[in-house]
Amino acid sequence: MTRSPGANGDGPLSAYDLDSLRERRSVKWATYPPDVLPMWVAEMDTPLAEPIASALTAAIRRGDTGYAAAGRLPEVYAEFASRRYGWRPDPAGMRLVADVMSGVVEAMLLTTTRGDRVVVNTPAYPPFFVWLDRIGRHIVESPLALGESGYRLDFDRLERDFAAGAEAYLLCSPHNPTGLVFGEEELATVAGLADRYGVRVIADEIHAPLTYPEARHVPFASLDTAASARAITLVSATKAWNLPGLKTALAVPGPETPTELARIPEEVSVRAGLLGVLASEAAFAEGEPWLAGLMAGLDANRRLLGEALVDKVPAIRWYRPQATYLAWLDCRALALGADPAEVFLERGRVALSPGPRFGAAGQGFARLNFATAPERVAEAVDRIAAALQTTEFPRNVPNDGGLGDRKRG
Amino acid sequence: MTRSPGANGDGPLSAYDLDSLRERRSVKWATYPPDVLPMWVAEMDTPLAEPIASALTAAIRRGDTGYAAAGRLPEVYAEFASRRYGWRPDPAGMRLVADVMSGVVEAMLLTTTRGDRVVVNTPAYPPFFVWLDRIGRHIVESPLALGESGYRLDFDRLERDFAAGAEAYLLCSPHNPTGLVFGEEELATVAGLADRYGVRVIADEIHAPLTYPEARHVPFASLDTAASARAITLVSATKAWNLPGLKTALAVPGPETPTELARIPEEVSVRAGLLGVLASEAAFAEGEPWLAGLMAGLDANRRLLGEALVDKVPAIRWYRPQATYLAWLDCRALALGADPAEVFLERGRVALSPGPRFGAAGQGFARLNFATAPERVAEAVDRIAAALQTTEFPRNVPNDGGLGDRKRG
Ligand SMILES: Cc1ncc(COP(=O)(O)O)c(C=O)c1O
Ligand SMILES: Cc1ncc(COP(=O)(O)O)c(C=O)c1O
Repeated sequence: MTRSPGANGDGPLSAYDLDSLRERRSVKWATYPPDVLPMWVAEMDTPLAEPIASALTAAIRRGDTGYAAAGRLPEVYAEFASRRYGWRPDPAGMRLVADVMSGVVEAMLLTTTRGDRVVVNTPAYPPFFVWLDRIGRHIVESPLALGESGYRLDFDRLERDFAAGAEAYLLCSPHNPTGLVFGEEELATVAGLADRYGVRVIADEIHAPLTYPEARHVPFASLDTAASARAITLVSATKAWNLPGLKTALAVPGPETPTELARIPEEVSVRAGLLGVLASEAAFAEGEPWLAGLMAGLDANRRLLGEALVDKVPAIRWYRPQATYLAWLDCRALALGADPAEVFLERGRVALSPGPRFGAAGQGFARLNFATAPERVAEAVDRIAAALQTTEFPRNVPNDGGLGDRKRG
Repeated sequence: MTRSPGANGDGPLSAYDLDSLRERRSVKWATYPPDVLPMWVAEMDTPLAEPIASALTAAIRRGDTGYAAAGRLPEVYAEFASRRYGWRPDPAGMRLVADVMSGVVEAMLLTTTRGDRVVVNTPAYPPFFVWLDRIGRHIVESPLALGESGYRLDFDRLERDFAAGAEAYLLCSPHNPTGLVFGEEELATVAGLADRYGVRVIADEIHAPLTYPEARHVPFASLDTAASARAITLVSATKAWNLPGLKTALAVPGPETPTELARIPEEVSVRAGLLGVLASEAAFAEGEPWLAGLMAGLDANRRLLGEALVDKVPAIRWYRPQATYLAWLDCRALALGADPAEVFLERGRVALSPGPRFGAAGQGFARLNFATAPERVAEAVDRIAAALQTTEFPRNVPNDGGLGDRKRG
């Protein structure tokens, strides 16, 4: 029951109806029972871009399902980054990894040792906690500042955390879950602090291709600073073209550490997926028109979500993301406790990502994924509103001063 | 340039000609220049079995490329194992992992701690060394015995290695690179030793579906012993149906440790590939007819290889594998040094896997992958023979007593 993509003017986000999405086997669709609307994990409800589908079909025809080699992916990525960000990293030093999270782990193994402290801005992508803990690195939660106009980097706090003896800083740029895009000046300040305190910067830039037109992604490694020259950057096509199950990402060295990544064993690279490599090449080389259509749809959804929240659940505050299809919802005024997503799921049958998993700064928050058809975004807000009608809803929103202006959404 | 599979009676091994194989992007075909015949890494030159190709094509149509969930794979595998080995492991405790090597690592993290000793029979699959070292486990090389009739488990040596204080034993069954299939009695002896010395058994059974008709694979965990009840077994469809680049394997608990694998974090399972899960389900559920055709072709190649070696390079000794498409070639009589594969590659333009990577017991050996068209198996032997004509070839084969009867091949 597939509508042809774009047929109704909504682009790839509206290509599939609910019945065909429920046939999917990915975690987004396979985890909850059919009466739950899944708006959680960072997958999109889109069809594959045509060049990607073609590349995969050709590989199946060739029986090309052996172990992955990086092939042309580093070169193709360098071209993409050059067109898109004016940054041309050296393909020769890039290494294939299974996913961005694996790449972060490898970068940490290269730049830090057991027991070292790694600074992460919170709220933070939950697996950061799991994986850094697994390799014996100590996460230092360095909360973003939340002011009237939304989130921003808290340089005082960052400096204190660097000064206290951190060996690495895991910069998530654009930032998940807040959707923040960091400007060149902010990044230069980060680099200055990193240089001052001898902190290595590992930049997770997985969401970069999903930057909205009003913002501009600046690769940290493209700055002219010592810290960026020594940065390791993780990139992939898996978020922007919805390929996370194909397992492919790249670790990109900074200009001053071109051979550092050579220390990653070959055995790590074969954990990547060959179909992921082929799909990622197609995405970076020929996937920009599809991406433009996607971003138009996400932009419309972003607006729609903001309006629906104002309309139906005005006590939820959020700050319009400048990148990503993730909305970080401040639900503290609803007084639903640490994990409002639990209430939304149980009473509203809509699945969001629980805020507390993003660190202490996530208490009272939930993350909503709006990379789906607009009617499902509207339906999700309706379900959240319905959940609140069956719970104790505080009429007087507490004045906590730290909350910003929801109307930005 | 694809011949239709089986059209010439050779089955899937002859489906592709050299030109189409060279279009492949997998490591087997992408690593060496076009004048080298690649006979190394454990990939096959086969097309996908039809049920697998269909499952993948359907997933592409659904845009089903999000994060992997295990889905029906555990249940489908339990059915397969029940039909094939009379062993029905409990699907509820199985965990999805990216590949067998990842599963081995997770099993070691669960059953041992840093600095612990892990016994491995050598020659051994080379990544065992890399990954156990990475997680701080100390590999104890416990060589197989090589006698007149070929390799076998050396129980005296194994007992000594267990007694010296090992915490785990990584059993590779069937064994790569020797192709040994262990009988029920041998495995019971292993289990007895493991029980006596309190050693946990981790069984890598990735090659089990590739057992030839004259042998019978017995899952270690199917024995009625304490050690097998506590074993962790790693299985996958990726060798037998050539899907290693799709990244999917299962960790299977023993009957007495049904919940132990629950401690593997969810973040590990999402490193698996979704297309790998779907392909593996199709393989285990509907792939046995294709596998039967494959095994017939591999059996013919096994005979052909044995004859060609006798004919063209009689100084090389080998022992016909009872499982797998890998031939472990004892080249010591050629006196080419530790790494004969280097000579074959440089002078014969044929790529085998270097023996020394399989541990100290691999010095003077090389591993040849014969999962390709028969004419390429013959060509590989010709190239090895040609390589020897341009080197110092010892006329008097040294009598080292430890070599067996090559004619078994
Ligand atoms: C910031 C961030 N990093 C990493 C990842 C995970 O990427 P991968 O699946 O490539 O490990 C995500 C996924 O959503 C993410 O948001
Ligand atoms: C004995 C053995 N274990 C593990 C593997 C690797 O399997 P995977 O690619 O699933 O890690 C191989 C690959 O050839 C193997 O021969």
